[in-house]
Amino acid sequence: MSNPLRVTVWSEFRHEKLNPKVAEIYPTGIHGAIAEFLGRDEHLAVGTATLDEREHGLTDDVLAATDVLLWWGHMAHGEVSDEVVAKVQRRVLEGMGLIVLHSAHYSKIFQRLMGTTCSLKWREATDKERLWNIAPSHPITAGLGEYFELPREEMYGEPFGIPEPDQLLFISWFTGGEVFRSGATWQRGHGRVFYFRPGHETYPTYHDANIQRILTNAVHWARPTVRMADECPNTPPLEPLPEA
Amino acid sequence: MSNPLRVTVWSEFRHEKLNPKVAEIYPTGIHGAIAEFLGRDEHLAVGTATLDEREHGLTDDVLAATDVLLWWGHMAHGEVSDEVVAKVQRRVLEGMGLIVLHSAHYSKIFQRLMGTTCSLKWREATDKERLWNIAPSHPITAGLGEYFELPREEMYGEPFGIPEPDQLLFISWFTGGEVFRSGATWQRGHGRVFYFRPGHETYPTYHDANIQRILTNAVHWARPTVRMADECPNTPPLEPLPEA
Amino acid sequence: MSNPLRVTVWSEFRHEKLNPKVAEIYPTGIHGAIAEFLGRDEHLAVGTATLDEREHGLTDDVLAATDVLLWWGHMAHGEVSDEVVAKVQRRVLEGMGLIVLHSAHYSKIFQRLMGTTCSLKWREATDKERLWNIAPSHPITAGLGEYFELPREEMYGEPFGIPEPDQLLFISWFTGGEVFRSGATWQRGHGRVFYFRPGHETYPTYHDANIQRILTNAVHWARPTVRMADECPNTPPLEPLPEA
Amino acid sequence: MSNPLRVTVWSEFRHEKLNPKVAEIYPTGIHGAIAEFLGRDEHLAVGTATLDEREHGLTDDVLAATDVLLWWGHMAHGEVSDEVVAKVQRRVLEGMGLIVLHSAHYSKIFQRLMGTTCSLKWREATDKERLWNIAPSHPITAGLGEYFELPREEMYGEPFGIPEPDQLLFISWFTGGEVFRSGATWQRGHGRVFYFRPGHETYPTYHDANIQRILTNAVHWARPTVRMADECPNTPPLEPLPEA
Repeated sequence: MSNPLRVTVWSEFRHEKLNPKVAEIYPTGIHGAIAEFLGRDEHLAVGTATLDEREHGLTDDVLAATDVLLWWGHMAHGEVSDEVVAKVQRRVLEGMGLIVLHSAHYSKIFQRLMGTTCSLKWREATDKERLWNIAPSHPITAGLGEYFELPREEMYGEPFGIPEPDQLLFISWFTGGEVFRSGATWQRGHGRVFYFRPGHETYPTYHDANIQRILTNAVHWARPTVRMADECPNTPPLEPLPEA
Repeated sequence: MSNPLRVTVWSEFRHEKLNPKVAEIYPTGIHGAIAEFLGRDEHLAVGTATLDEREHGLTDDVLAATDVLLWWGHMAHGEVSDEVVAKVQRRVLEGMGLIVLHSAHYSKIFQRLMGTTCSLKWREATDKERLWNIAPSHPITAGLGEYFELPREEMYGEPFGIPEPDQLLFISWFTGGEVFRSGATWQRGHGRVFYFRPGHETYPTYHDANIQRILTNAVHWARPTVRMADECPNTPPLEPLPEA
Repeated sequence: MSNPLRVTVWSEFRHEKLNPKVAEIYPTGIHGAIAEFLGRDEHLAVGTATLDEREHGLTDDVLAATDVLLWWGHMAHGEVSDEVVAKVQRRVLEGMGLIVLHSAHYSKIFQRLMGTTCSLKWREATDKERLWNIAPSHPITAGLGEYFELPREEMYGEPFGIPEPDQLLFISWFTGGEVFRSGATWQRGHGRVFYFRPGHETYPTYHDANIQRILTNAVHWARPTVRMADECPNTPPLEPLPEA
Repeated sequence: MSNPLRVTVWSEFRHEKLNPKVAEIYPTGIHGAIAEFLGRDEHLAVGTATLDEREHGLTDDVLAATDVLLWWGHMAHGEVSDEVVAKVQRRVLEGMGLIVLHSAHYSKIFQRLMGTTCSLKWREATDKERLWNIAPSHPITAGLGEYFELPREEMYGEPFGIPEPDQLLFISWFTGGEVFRSGATWQRGHGRVFYFRPGHETYPTYHDANIQRILTNAVHWARPTVRMADECPNTPPLEPLPEA
């Protein structure tokens, strides 16, 4: 327990440069805001990486030194290089935790790990979102009540094009009449994956105390237990084979 | 029930050309052997496609007219074009059934749909495989007994790098001391996926009556219920939104 | 396909006798209304059974001749004999399909098959329920649109004390602010189980066309593939045992 | 982390009194042997309980003070009172971990939580069991290799009458030709359940280092996160209801 968990917060960091409203809410970027509150947990060592850095900030060294990666993307999924995506996928399968945020439902890395479209309904209009905690004994929901509300968020609605989750943690209610599986987990290889819906760039979602608690919980939950690269070995028999 | 189910059997068709032993067992190719026994079912309309055809025989027209695709590959996974793989994946997510055979555990299409390595242990030495039917009420196991044996097969052993199956149907016992999850199902998008382990090219596995029964059952089980391409629509509210 | 599927609709048949409002909506009982619309499907042979009949109408002969059982109960769960519940459970595990309706979430048979509390939130006040179809390619949702509405229903809310479903089919939105996993499936032994939320006795829910379609679909989906009573047999070895 | 985890090891403690061979292997009982090795972990506070004690040693006070319960039974499942079983089930659903050992696959408590027969094949003849670790990154398998062997055990074979596990951890190979899902997990209510196959009373299985490691890991994995008794509350609306 003495070594801190090494966390990398990845974000596109584009809306913040293009839209003053977003920059006002997140002056150090969405990644900066997330890194700031995660950094308050003394058991976490938090760094950041962004799209426009070399190799999107996710060099082999950075990935090798990352236990849990958070991923926020929206307008530039297509600019993320397939090579980096392949490396991130490999690291997840080796054991790195991955937390996929909001519009990153359509990121290459999430689609690769799920194998599905990851499509959904959406409406870029201010709505109230009420997140129901349907798994109150899961480590990710520790400390939450039965539900909490975000007074201003974008809407995402079902159907959500994902494989049946290992465990469903949150279902969202929207004033506009929709529902959404807004928090869900999957094991992929030796890594744990958590998708969490809220986080539209024009609302102060990552400043919300419940959101911060959930993501901090999720980082701990997603910590690796091993680093293990699966191979496909030719192996000798353990018992005598039948006569040919 | 009047329209037959349209089945396409895809195979690399390389070992058969390079290895006389394989050609002797499968004179019309592995795809030919599979198409032959599936074709005995009057409810199935069966075609074939192979790697060296144009677009690997999987043109847009062929894919659009395929309800269930079977896939056998081994030595040339890397030669399958990424574009064709993307099209096949899209068709599965729209509803087409996919049956993945033996060494196609390492095919691009299976890895894409699973999101994992799909790695395993193997031993290219003749072994006896006993497949235990652990889901005797599943449609794919209809008509089978508690187990059946293949007197000569290649060994595949755990761990198998797949997501937890929706349902596990078969577990194999090998004389050499290994076990394997040799039949398993997953839903991906609107399509059903079945992986089935046996089928090494140097043994007459696809001439075995139990294997033929399972694959015929599986084709019926994997039939599409819809053809539906998920989009990601912007949608108007169904109820009044809160005041901004 | 020539033999019809044998369906038994079980209901408490108490509210109908005690509350004139319920009797007006369901003059032949809730079971009567369900049996009536299922009976319009020529492939179904439908009977009914109720609490106050001998053995609750579920004698050994009736159960042996039932392929799919529907269960509606509410005010008298405690009056259902443990012996009958044990027999019904045994039949489900042998392959009989079971469709659990509305307040039967708290029935002995559902709790027995789930192993959990099956508790939930509720509010006996008229609300509008919108059921989102999150599995549009599942046989139970065939013919439905993206969602449908019940203008007047009782509310059930999360958390719902069930094991993670094999597949989640519907999520409900309520005007009052709640959500609910209102349609879900589980395999138990050789039998298929479907829980479906709507159906409060004071509203004409079972006269709704979408509800009728879903329950008709569900009966077909839940049809048995086998009748198989698991035993726990002592079995001889298939291979030579090691020297003692 | 300062408060130890409170563990209760429950066993029938009958074979040990009736069969000198068993008594020789387990002079303090199977529960005594398990309690002894768990007690070497300084983070665990371990007690025992047995069938012939008052309320089988599982009084309300004992259950309230138990975080994780291990259960070994075989010849006297029928003597366990339904009332105690109901209390244990309630505690699991509230959050208590439960580890079900070997022949306790047929215990009332396991059948209640699974909802199924929990039947299997068996052969009371000495066999070698090789347990394949198919989930090397799960906390329960920490520190194990790819497989380990028990040179002398009873055989259990598929099909095993359980609901599809949340996660399958071990598959066993037996010399006699069978396979078995020998380690599997399920969430039930707020509690975690682990079934682990080995442990026949006439073999020194609980003295094996790998078995001890697995059960110690499992106790930590099964620790409660909450104590929460689900109720079924009538709740007021959070939003205005539609006009009646």
